[in-house]
Amino acid sequence: MNAQIQHWGEGLRLLVEWLATAAFALSGVLEAARKRLDAVGVCVVAFLAAFGGGTLRDLLLDHRPFFWVAHVEVLWAVLALAVGAMLWMRRGHIAPTERAIQWPDALGLGLFTAAGTHRALVEGMPVLVAVLMGVLTAVFGGVLRDMVCNEIPTAFRDHRPYAVFAFAGGWLYVALWAAGAPGWAALLGCVVLAAGLRALALWRDWRLPAWQT
Amino acid sequence: MNAQIQHWGEGLRLLVEWLATAAFALSGVLEAARKRLDAVGVCVVAFLAAFGGGTLRDLLLDHRPFFWVAHVEVLWAVLALAVGAMLWMRRGHIAPTERAIQWPDALGLGLFTAAGTHRALVEGMPVLVAVLMGVLTAVFGGVLRDMVCNEIPTAFRDHRPYAVFAFAGGWLYVALWAAGAPGWAALLGCVVLAAGLRALALWRDWRLPAWQT
Amino acid sequence: MNAQIQHWGEGLRLLVEWLATAAFALSGVLEAARKRLDAVGVCVVAFLAAFGGGTLRDLLLDHRPFFWVAHVEVLWAVLALAVGAMLWMRRGHIAPTERAIQWPDALGLGLFTAAGTHRALVEGMPVLVAVLMGVLTAVFGGVLRDMVCNEIPTAFRDHRPYAVFAFAGGWLYVALWAAGAPGWAALLGCVVLAAGLRALALWRDWRLPAWQT
Repeated sequence: MNAQIQHWGEGLRLLVEWLATAAFALSGVLEAARKRLDAVGVCVVAFLAAFGGGTLRDLLLDHRPFFWVAHVEVLWAVLALAVGAMLWMRRGHIAPTERAIQWPDALGLGLFTAAGTHRALVEGMPVLVAVLMGVLTAVFGGVLRDMVCNEIPTAFRDHRPYAVFAFAGGWLYVALWAAGAPGWAALLGCVVLAAGLRALALWRDWRLPAWQT
Repeated sequence: MNAQIQHWGEGLRLLVEWLATAAFALSGVLEAARKRLDAVGVCVVAFLAAFGGGTLRDLLLDHRPFFWVAHVEVLWAVLALAVGAMLWMRRGHIAPTERAIQWPDALGLGLFTAAGTHRALVEGMPVLVAVLMGVLTAVFGGVLRDMVCNEIPTAFRDHRPYAVFAFAGGWLYVALWAAGAPGWAALLGCVVLAAGLRALALWRDWRLPAWQT
Repeated sequence: MNAQIQHWGEGLRLLVEWLATAAFALSGVLEAARKRLDAVGVCVVAFLAAFGGGTLRDLLLDHRPFFWVAHVEVLWAVLALAVGAMLWMRRGHIAPTERAIQWPDALGLGLFTAAGTHRALVEGMPVLVAVLMGVLTAVFGGVLRDMVCNEIPTAFRDHRPYAVFAFAGGWLYVALWAAGAPGWAALLGCVVLAAGLRALALWRDWRLPAWQT
């Protein structure tokens, strides 16, 4: 943990984790509402989507305490967000569409990639492992969310690229970090690349080449 | 780990873990038999249901050794229970119904909530984390059991409340514990509340309000 | 870690992990290709199949660093194997059949059983726990592979024995190890028994007695 890593700063790191957690919690609420789960189910899916990826990362890195143990208020915040979103959707008669889920999901993808890659680098992991940890942090919450809602996970189902953008973002983070760029630049680059490519892929309807044998 | 916590006593704690493990192992055997899995499958499902929740809890709390490593005899006991139940069902021509699974499941729900909440409190977790650990211990074994049997987990599928009773039981445990009640009282209160509410919900066919957008 | 365990030798142990990893990675590539996943999906499934079992084992045993952190080159090797196999299958117009997946899968079953049981014995686990760790190492990668491809896992679905052979192989390993046999003999016995029985079961179409109530 040399000074270089400290560039990012503890405050900025926390902000990224908070934003990513909120983005995925929102995607969980929207997906659960779309599947017409009951109120308890909506909260469960919000928690799984928000904390699944980061918890698996910390489990694999043997990092304790978890983000949500060190900052219990984030648990309360997600609970409040889930209840608030339910009330708001009910009042506004807003039906969450599949498209609505994709925007917080894309933002969370970029933010969690940066947070996961950063954490693994700080713990001295090799760069390929760090990038894979970033991908895993970004993807696993959404996979849990979809599995619980009895869907084949988006990350695997459609041929629109998803995990590969987290992979690209992670490598950019590693490259900027190795080049001695300030922490906020590595973060911003990673988020913009991963979330931006995902948004672009959704907008232009990019598809990976189908597998033909 | 002050004297107050010791009120419960190591013996009572072990008994609760044993009973909960047996209850969930039985629910696993019944579900696997109902799905007509083969003999190996019945044993696998019994193990997953019995040890899934506690193992995930200990993994998250970084608590070693696991219950089933410290007490290997519990592994043999579950194996014997699975084989014995299979022989007994075959001889008695007893067909396990979906209702038959619900009673050991409800009992295990209460017992594992108490055991999980207790363990997390002893390890100094914040109370909300402790309650969530109780819920997770109680729910995850059943979720694994249902996933392996290719069902959408009961905890998520039907609109009959399930996890929310573990949540309520966990808070009662925390409240009694904070109030300085003896350990057996906190335990009993938590088990009776969680398992009792679940039994009541099954009997009266309570349903959570369906989500309407 | 007495001298007796050292008989096996670090080199042989590494070779077994490498071979098992390659065998399961190949089974993942074949299954993903058969399900016509895209190129990213094929790589994801190859990684899950190759590293799922060993990672869960090390997580439960609290053993760090993971195999793929200590030997990062294995990650690159699996990536290369997946890309290479895709190019080769595309050029050769070879369609992977369900049967083709079964041979690397059977070999990996034997190898991972030996590696998993060995690791748990070295860490001083009781013998039943060591055997179960072997089974889990051998089975979990394949379960993840099948779950991601939206199949009921082979290990649970068909009535052809699978996990039970890993169980038998693990006990043979423990017996030979306890009898003071040299490490390579315990390894060879375990692999031949588990993989051989599996191959025999596939060839002779053995089936476990169906459950009848």
